[in-house]
Amino acid sequence: MSTILVKTATVNYPVYVQPRLLETLASHLRQVVGEQRSIYVVTSPEIWSRWGHLFQGSFAARKVEIVPLFVPAGERFKQLKTVEHLAEKMVLAGAKRDALLIAFGGGVIGDMTGFLAAMYMRGIRYAQVPTTYLSQIDSSIGGKTGVNLRVGKNLVGSFHPPIAVFIDPVILTTLPPKELRSGAVESVKAAVLGDARFFAWLEQNMTSLLAGDQEDITRAIETSVRIKAEIVSADERESGERMLLNLGHTVGHAIEAATRYRTLLHGEAIAWGMIAALHLSVARSALSPAEAKRIEELTFRLGPFPRFRATAKVLLDRTAGDKKHLQTAQRFVLPVAIGKAVVVEDVTQQELLAAIHSMLRTMKERGV
Amino acid sequence: MSTILVKTATVNYPVYVQPRLLETLASHLRQVVGEQRSIYVVTSPEIWSRWGHLFQGSFAARKVEIVPLFVPAGERFKQLKTVEHLAEKMVLAGAKRDALLIAFGGGVIGDMTGFLAAMYMRGIRYAQVPTTYLSQIDSSIGGKTGVNLRVGKNLVGSFHPPIAVFIDPVILTTLPPKELRSGAVESVKAAVLGDARFFAWLEQNMTSLLAGDQEDITRAIETSVRIKAEIVSADERESGERMLLNLGHTVGHAIEAATRYRTLLHGEAIAWGMIAALHLSVARSALSPAEAKRIEELTFRLGPFPRFRATAKVLLDRTAGDKKHLQTAQRFVLPVAIGKAVVVEDVTQQELLAAIHSMLRTMKERGV
Repeated sequence: MSTILVKTATVNYPVYVQPRLLETLASHLRQVVGEQRSIYVVTSPEIWSRWGHLFQGSFAARKVEIVPLFVPAGERFKQLKTVEHLAEKMVLAGAKRDALLIAFGGGVIGDMTGFLAAMYMRGIRYAQVPTTYLSQIDSSIGGKTGVNLRVGKNLVGSFHPPIAVFIDPVILTTLPPKELRSGAVESVKAAVLGDARFFAWLEQNMTSLLAGDQEDITRAIETSVRIKAEIVSADERESGERMLLNLGHTVGHAIEAATRYRTLLHGEAIAWGMIAALHLSVARSALSPAEAKRIEELTFRLGPFPRFRATAKVLLDRTAGDKKHLQTAQRFVLPVAIGKAVVVEDVTQQELLAAIHSMLRTMKERGV
Repeated sequence: MSTILVKTATVNYPVYVQPRLLETLASHLRQVVGEQRSIYVVTSPEIWSRWGHLFQGSFAARKVEIVPLFVPAGERFKQLKTVEHLAEKMVLAGAKRDALLIAFGGGVIGDMTGFLAAMYMRGIRYAQVPTTYLSQIDSSIGGKTGVNLRVGKNLVGSFHPPIAVFIDPVILTTLPPKELRSGAVESVKAAVLGDARFFAWLEQNMTSLLAGDQEDITRAIETSVRIKAEIVSADERESGERMLLNLGHTVGHAIEAATRYRTLLHGEAIAWGMIAALHLSVARSALSPAEAKRIEELTFRLGPFPRFRATAKVLLDRTAGDKKHLQTAQRFVLPVAIGKAVVVEDVTQQELLAAIHSMLRTMKERGV
């Protein structure tokens, strides 16, 4: 079993990656937190009906009460009211400050459960058991928790690290192929910004990975987690290096906002955002056209990505509304080589507009 | 000007106490956080109409935009929905991660503003400018923030220390006398659990303090803040010593819950809770009857406290529901001398019931 350590200002926590980890979750959890009387599991009815039996199975030998707390699947339920209802259910179920929460689901469930743990009685412990490729390699790592407001996404939340993250790639076998493909965009992103060898490995093994090869998927997850863990350990609160993880996100978020989060999966929007970043970087001669081409080719192997309708001007305006910018979109994550990205502060509106236009042209040529 | 430093695991912050501090708030704030473009002030319409002019006056010379965010006064608005509305208003007003919040009000506003600061974009800075005696000496110090759930008080929140606390005792001159008297109960509590000299000083100066003597009020606030700051600095997260601050709160909270927070002010409920604690301590010979008598006498000088209707059995049941207990009410803060309290774990239900009965008898003899 791979164990990757994430370091934060206050605590370190392990990320375990192993096929069939779910079947031995109870004993691994016990090693981290000791015996528990009750465990509150935030999950969706769909996940619980498919995997709940296996989840509970490992606890059967111990006297642990497993209390599932259901939330409906979907981004639109990622709001304070849902977290409030969960907190009320916990109070009525008798959960005290020593209670343990587990997030058993995708990114929405992970973000909400982490925030619930951050605020319940001013902070209790939680573990992550992510069930999608994207949440396994991205949102479950790094301690960012939160929910959406009507006026924007992820605008309220907390930095609240989990006590541990348990990743079982076998759970991914029931994912729709599209989820796996779009999730893998973040693996390509991780390789581009931090690991040239991993990039080459992805080029060689992408076909078998997307075909569901368990060994390849496990290796891709391990490596992606390792890249993110290193960056997050160096900069938990996103004052510097953690910004690198936003590669492709300036334009990607703009696309998601302009299409009201309905047309594309997150990874699909980030794929287009990366294409824009490649154009911008090549245009200022920060990245060679040959390397840009390789990145573009690998990215498009995860497609086809749906087209969307939005003008370059609308997308440019949306980048300024991204909360990651203190002023209008002048900060940008620039890929400068396969395996290396930098954060620059001097990207002009004109450059960004030109890059968006190039991306839209690419979409015409290559989109579905 | 008195400056008291509160130490936490991550940061230290100053508490300034000075009459007419409100008039020079801008320059003091600038020393702590530097220049700000915008400051978001959470306050109530009542406080703002009475003190807003003075608050804004000190910023007039600087180019600081003061954005008041109004919340209605009252405990029933201390809920997640109110905090969500405030966050939405901030987004629409353009507040970013570098925004500064100020809580300008009593304990409810302080608790909500602190929680808003804790969650807004995963944490921004805030300062406290408390406007009631109770919030000046108690809730503004220590970094506890949060709101109520329908199923109980202060059940969700965060530890989020302010960057500074600015206390102007002059603001108290417009408080109803009953608020001052009930707030002073927490000063007596602070003296009982940690400062025999302060207790003697309160015995000598309570009359002039309650008559509104500015110098005496300032001294009482300073000393009360100092006692709380020392305890909180030693134990921010209430794993040990901070429990001492709950003197009188086991039964006090039970009274508040049994009367649905409608009959008594917080300080009045804590006064009765302290009386119960005195009875319990004397009954197990941990406190001399003579010292108990002195504490009781000083406490009752802050009355008359309203009577309430609740049986001893109902109150006992309510103590078990207090979230501060891991099991049923066996942990208890015991006054053992004037100036000293200890946390014990072995208080039985029978002892507690007997103490509640004694308190109810005292109420019959001395209540309004």
